[in-house]
Amino acid sequence: MNHTYRFRPIYGDTDMMGVVYYANYLRFFEAGRTEFLRDAGFTYRRIESMGFAFPVVNVQVKYHSPAFYDDALELVSTVKKVSRSSLVIGSEITRPEDGAVIVTGEVVLACVDKTGKVQPLPEELRAVLAEQGIA
Amino acid sequence: MNHTYRFRPIYGDTDMMGVVYYANYLRFFEAGRTEFLRDAGFTYRRIESMGFAFPVVNVQVKYHSPAFYDDALELVSTVKKVSRSSLVIGSEITRPEDGAVIVTGEVVLACVDKTGKVQPLPEELRAVLAEQGIA
Amino acid sequence: MNHTYRFRPIYGDTDMMGVVYYANYLRFFEAGRTEFLRDAGFTYRRIESMGFAFPVVNVQVKYHSPAFYDDALELVSTVKKVSRSSLVIGSEITRPEDGAVIVTGEVVLACVDKTGKVQPLPEELRAVLAEQGIA
Amino acid sequence: MNHTYRFRPIYGDTDMMGVVYYANYLRFFEAGRTEFLRDAGFTYRRIESMGFAFPVVNVQVKYHSPAFYDDALELVSTVKKVSRSSLVIGSEITRPEDGAVIVTGEVVLACVDKTGKVQPLPEELRAVLAEQGIA
Repeated sequence: MNHTYRFRPIYGDTDMMGVVYYANYLRFFEAGRTEFLRDAGFTYRRIESMGFAFPVVNVQVKYHSPAFYDDALELVSTVKKVSRSSLVIGSEITRPEDGAVIVTGEVVLACVDKTGKVQPLPEELRAVLAEQGIA
Repeated sequence: MNHTYRFRPIYGDTDMMGVVYYANYLRFFEAGRTEFLRDAGFTYRRIESMGFAFPVVNVQVKYHSPAFYDDALELVSTVKKVSRSSLVIGSEITRPEDGAVIVTGEVVLACVDKTGKVQPLPEELRAVLAEQGIA
Repeated sequence: MNHTYRFRPIYGDTDMMGVVYYANYLRFFEAGRTEFLRDAGFTYRRIESMGFAFPVVNVQVKYHSPAFYDDALELVSTVKKVSRSSLVIGSEITRPEDGAVIVTGEVVLACVDKTGKVQPLPEELRAVLAEQGIA
Repeated sequence: MNHTYRFRPIYGDTDMMGVVYYANYLRFFEAGRTEFLRDAGFTYRRIESMGFAFPVVNVQVKYHSPAFYDDALELVSTVKKVSRSSLVIGSEITRPEDGAVIVTGEVVLACVDKTGKVQPLPEELRAVLAEQGIA
């Protein structure tokens, strides 16, 4: 189960070094996760309407090579691990034009209810993941 | 009634042209407005706790000269107009080192309640503005 | 000559009011302008490689109604005016699902060379605009 | 050798969950590193004028508890490790009002020249670090 999200950095994503600013990759990761979930037949809005939220509790990013303004980039999101009340999503951004790996990252999302208390993943999400051969 | 907010743009505020990205000035404007209100003995949090919000309904910005990474900048916020249910805040950013005017702008904030309905400005805010010789 | 850019705001575009933060619309405007130019057979990269840049010198935005996380939005960019050394681009963001107009804006871009000096628009860009029936 | 940077998140730093958006902590980390270096008698501008840049090559962040709009936060930056051609900077953000630890992170910066080639840290920076009892 993985998903490819295609995008191009804008001026507002770059910094004066002429490359994409390091924090903005976490925005791309979020956009990729959202589209990935949508493709699997699920949305964050659905998660919220069920009374849950998925705050990020841990992030690791390796910056392999710089990406530039308007590069045609691909972000592949993968479910790397499903635990009782958390998910680990892997993200890899590449530039197909020259095969460069730009960044790789892992984001841990916890499942919490409206009061912020950790909760088991909703059954509906588990079912979607199971359908895709995960968890 | 005006307020000076001092700040320095970071890498994340600049773009590949080597200057501060145009959208980020609106972030600075917000930071300036907040500190200005705090100085007058009021906070946005207080506004919210009273059941109001002040969404931006109009923005005009003139970009006079570029600002660069780590420039020591000054933002002066001024109340330009107080209406029954809105405020016009003027913002001017300068670089004192060389006297350059960087941007000038005007932001119109409407006063709304939790349902999004336009409401008269809260009395407490009017009183604060009146104390400062405005409205 | 106009262009429609489709996108969905992410969490990172929203603020604690639950709506898209006012500064982020300027990011969307930029993304829309870029795709619009690409569609016309031109890119900002091309402009840069010719030794020009198009800094924003003026922005006006009206915020008509709030946009929310993950809304399917459409941004239409239009060339509103072509002068000797500047362009006025109009941007309108709507939410087709309910027909709501979210924001309308105008951005003035100046044509400058690498030293920052104002220059006439490059002939190649004029030709592209003329082909589209503008200027 | 450490440095405390004080700041308050703005609306633009928060998201619709009502808390600071996860990517924006990397912006705060950058602001903290910059002020920390300035306090030590050094600036990034100086590094650049010497022909070097310090791109981020690795980031790890743990999100312990949420921070909210306008919280008075403190970010302590620490040099955790000095290698031949890289630096590890630790960042910890707390909210002194209630003692909450918000996030802890580590950022690895590589020293490169204008061509992007890895280089030993400049002697002048080493001297500054040595003066502070590091490296």
